[in-house]
Amino acid sequence: MTRKAVPIEEIAANRCFGGWHRRYRHYSATLRCEMVFAVYLPPQAADARVPALYWLSGLTCSDENFMQKAGALRVAGELGIAIVAPDTSPRGAQVPGDPDGAWDFGHGAGFYVNATQQPWAEHYRMHDYVVFELPELLEASLPVNTSRGLSGHSMGGHGALVCALRNPGRYRSLSAFAPISHALASPWGEKAFSRYLGADRGAWKAWDACELIAAGVGERLPLLVDQGLADGFLAEQLQPETLRQACAAAGHPLTLRLQAGYDHSYFFIASFIDDHLRHHAAALLP
Amino acid sequence: MTRKAVPIEEIAANRCFGGWHRRYRHYSATLRCEMVFAVYLPPQAADARVPALYWLSGLTCSDENFMQKAGALRVAGELGIAIVAPDTSPRGAQVPGDPDGAWDFGHGAGFYVNATQQPWAEHYRMHDYVVFELPELLEASLPVNTSRGLSGHSMGGHGALVCALRNPGRYRSLSAFAPISHALASPWGEKAFSRYLGADRGAWKAWDACELIAAGVGERLPLLVDQGLADGFLAEQLQPETLRQACAAAGHPLTLRLQAGYDHSYFFIASFIDDHLRHHAAALLP
Repeated sequence: MTRKAVPIEEIAANRCFGGWHRRYRHYSATLRCEMVFAVYLPPQAADARVPALYWLSGLTCSDENFMQKAGALRVAGELGIAIVAPDTSPRGAQVPGDPDGAWDFGHGAGFYVNATQQPWAEHYRMHDYVVFELPELLEASLPVNTSRGLSGHSMGGHGALVCALRNPGRYRSLSAFAPISHALASPWGEKAFSRYLGADRGAWKAWDACELIAAGVGERLPLLVDQGLADGFLAEQLQPETLRQACAAAGHPLTLRLQAGYDHSYFFIASFIDDHLRHHAAALLP
Repeated sequence: MTRKAVPIEEIAANRCFGGWHRRYRHYSATLRCEMVFAVYLPPQAADARVPALYWLSGLTCSDENFMQKAGALRVAGELGIAIVAPDTSPRGAQVPGDPDGAWDFGHGAGFYVNATQQPWAEHYRMHDYVVFELPELLEASLPVNTSRGLSGHSMGGHGALVCALRNPGRYRSLSAFAPISHALASPWGEKAFSRYLGADRGAWKAWDACELIAAGVGERLPLLVDQGLADGFLAEQLQPETLRQACAAAGHPLTLRLQAGYDHSYFFIASFIDDHLRHHAAALLP
């Protein structure tokens, strides 16, 4: 079967640090809905294909939060790395959301899993979207190559760890900010997994960073994690100490930096994003 | 009469680049309403009073846009300069807004003038608020000194030029991004001035940057201006060429940088804010 070219429609373009921030709309066959994503193409992409850092955002975010608030584009432009920011869930009137209208499930809260339960299974396949469909679309349409890094924040930090661990060989670098490290034992994760994945908690382990590390799944990409110590979600939702113990027990290389006084906001991310970009560049650039 | 201490209420605090982003609410006697402003205090403010760059935002903005989107706090933290971001108009149910609900007048669109016409004159006194009340409040309450810089974007670029030109000796440094340079001859300015200042166009000249420069009002603070050439508002609303001519005729020192491909967004501001911070630091730091 020949591969059909998938159209992407540019909906915004802003020159930034000598490169371009662009937003695109496309129909996702994986998610069965229209999706919007954002890409920062550094100046170097005018002449050659560049590596791409995929950024997975947290609860309630769209493609816009990281691009506007993280202050990441300056160093990405210096280093010559593209940044790709997908949305955080399938969207649209035909996509079911939280029955109670809550912000921590459904729209804006896809948790980067492939749902197995109804009515979620038809659209909520964010793992396959961010790991397969989106990179393939980008690599066919834009000047990015297959040297891929993965990072994210909170729910997106969980997504980054899980997507990289489940897909050895697909990413060259990995980091996270304040990830939900042990989703199956956190209130956010329990709510999401019980609906997307069903009542069998055994099935949740394949979508939990600490469980995947403990099971020795995936390759041992050196992991850089920043966590603010004034983060109101630290103990109950994020559990960095559990991540530390899982990595130590499994021999997974982890640099966990506990940052005194920092919270869960983009002011925290902005303060340390340059270190993450350089961590990724060391693995992504030739 | 003894000066009464004015209370300010902290409503948010985020550690950022070793310093603090903080938001405060207070009652403004000038504007006769409650106001919110944001301050970034760099790490150096823990030990000593630091200079402050006042940033005036554009139409529809609040105290939040610049702090979240400009990427300015990194270099401010390095240099040891505080940043102060006021709101762009008086706010609240008792403050009249645009009769038609438009976004370019009223709430979010104070134009940094002192209104003389009813029903605006009671609350719309943003010039006096940003030039006098807010700095005095900050210098009495927070570790900032009287070494003040002034900058802004679009309507706030107009505000920065006009407030500095009208108040010689009050600021040590001045810059702007895409300012409304000749407000009395721009559609945004004509709408605002005709309501805030009345039908007599002669009275508008005291609130127009090009007219003030042409009249030789104020001191000749070296002026750094960045303007994107892909800015959709360039010719009709912003008129940088008129500013260039006014400065040339009056001998006002101007560095006008026309940036190819850049638009009116915060992606443009972020790309060049570091240069502005260093321009201000050269004048503000001892």
